[in-house]
Amino acid sequence: MRRILLTVAYDGTDYHGWQLQDNGSTIEGELNRAISELTGSVTEVIGASRTDSGVHGLGNRAVFDTESSIPAERFGPAINTFLPDDIRVMSSTEVSASWHPRKVRTVKTYEYRIDRGRIENPLMLRYAWHVWGELDLEAMRAAAEYLVGEHDFTSFCAAASQVEDKTREIISIDVEESAAAGELVIRVRGYGFLYNMVRIIAGTLVTVGQGKIAPEDVSGILEARDRTRACETAPAKGLTLVSIEDV
Amino acid sequence: MRRILLTVAYDGTDYHGWQLQDNGSTIEGELNRAISELTGSVTEVIGASRTDSGVHGLGNRAVFDTESSIPAERFGPAINTFLPDDIRVMSSTEVSASWHPRKVRTVKTYEYRIDRGRIENPLMLRYAWHVWGELDLEAMRAAAEYLVGEHDFTSFCAAASQVEDKTREIISIDVEESAAAGELVIRVRGYGFLYNMVRIIAGTLVTVGQGKIAPEDVSGILEARDRTRACETAPAKGLTLVSIEDV
Repeated sequence: MRRILLTVAYDGTDYHGWQLQDNGSTIEGELNRAISELTGSVTEVIGASRTDSGVHGLGNRAVFDTESSIPAERFGPAINTFLPDDIRVMSSTEVSASWHPRKVRTVKTYEYRIDRGRIENPLMLRYAWHVWGELDLEAMRAAAEYLVGEHDFTSFCAAASQVEDKTREIISIDVEESAAAGELVIRVRGYGFLYNMVRIIAGTLVTVGQGKIAPEDVSGILEARDRTRACETAPAKGLTLVSIEDV
Repeated sequence: MRRILLTVAYDGTDYHGWQLQDNGSTIEGELNRAISELTGSVTEVIGASRTDSGVHGLGNRAVFDTESSIPAERFGPAINTFLPDDIRVMSSTEVSASWHPRKVRTVKTYEYRIDRGRIENPLMLRYAWHVWGELDLEAMRAAAEYLVGEHDFTSFCAAASQVEDKTREIISIDVEESAAAGELVIRVRGYGFLYNMVRIIAGTLVTVGQGKIAPEDVSGILEARDRTRACETAPAKGLTLVSIEDV
C-alpha cells in the first residue's frame, strides 16, 4: 500500500465546501469519486483543511492510500481527467504510510481579497468581498499587530466550534493594496486556524478600517475570549487557502 | 428626450456575447430588459463594442434614450438593481442626443490573459487561456512590433467579417508577466479592431513564443492579407475589453 499526497486547487463557488456531505457536491466528494474511478477501487482522501462552502483553494492538501502502480507524479494529471475543471490536482507525490496531513506541523497562508471599487466588479464577484467607502489601511495594520503571535483566539472562532484549546499562533498579517487595480488583500500566515478564524479577522480589520472601532480595541476583543465581541464574519467568497508548507 | 451613456462591466462566461439574439441571454438583451423595467418604457441600447460569446468587459459602453427624469449619475445604481450580478453598470452620464458610441474616435484597450502554470489554475479558468510550455517573451515582443501602426489587418480578421476596409491602427502591444504569479498579459491598444482581431493576434504571438514561427514571419502574414496565413484564434475566455477612451 502506498500513500499519495495531492496538492489541490479549486474554485469553491459551486461547492458545499471541502468536507463530504450527504447532499450537495464537495471537493472531498469529487476527489473520492475521481480517484475511485481512476484506480477502480473505492478510495477516500484525508484532507489537510476542511474549507467552508464558497472558500477557494490553491494549495490545499489531501492524501489517499492505493495499491495502484501509477507513478506518484502521474497521479495528478490522471485524476484531473476525472475531475470537473474547477477542481485540479496541481501536484502529486508519495509520502510515508504514516504521514497524516493534519498531524504535521505546517504553515498555512490564507489570502482574503476585498474589491474596493464603488460598484462591485463582475470579474471579482466570485473571489472578493465588495467593501466600498474609506478604509484606513494604517489602522488596519495597527489592529493586525495585536493578533500576531500566540493568543487564545476564542473571540475569533465560530461559536459552533467544538475545539477545546483555542490557542493558535499567527506568524504575520499583511494588508496590501494589490497590483490589480482596486483590490485589497489581507494575507494571514499561521501554524493553524480555528473555524472561521481568518474570516472573522478580515471582518474585524475592515471594521477597524471603517473607523467603527479603534485598532487598540482588538486587544480587548482578544482578551474577552467571547465570539460576540469580535466583528462580522467576512463572506466566504473572498477567502483563498493559498498554501500549506511543512516546517 | 435625453441620451444616457453607460460604462458596462461583465463576466462574459455565461452569456452569448454582447449582441441581442433570439436564443440565449446576451449583455445587450439584459441591459434592454433592465432599463425597460426601470423606466417602464421599452428601451434599446446602442453598444460601442459587440464582444463575442465568452469575452469579458470592464469598460464597454452603451447609450440609450429616455424620457425618464432620473438624474444621469443615478441611472447606474438603479439599473444595477434590475441586472444579474455578473453584469454591472459602472457609471452613467448624460451625452448630447446625437452622440453615438460607434461614431466617435476612441482608443480601445484589450487585455488577453494567459495562465502559464503547468496545470490549469481553477481560479483563472474563466478569465485566462492555459498555455503550458516555454514561451519566448522577447520573440513575442519582437513579433508584436510588426503589428503596431496602421496596417491592412485582413490576415487578422475572422473570414466571416463583412467589413470592407480592413485597415486599422494599433497604438501599442505590451507583453507582460503579471504581478499575479504565473500569468502573462497581452495588452493591445488601438483606434478600432476587426472581428476576432485581438484573439488572432494573441494566438499568433503565442505561436511565435512557442518558436513555431519566427517574429519576422508576422510581417509576411500581414502582407499576405489572408486569414489562413495567421495562426489559431485564441479562446474567447482570455479576452477582456478593459476600456474605451475618447480621443
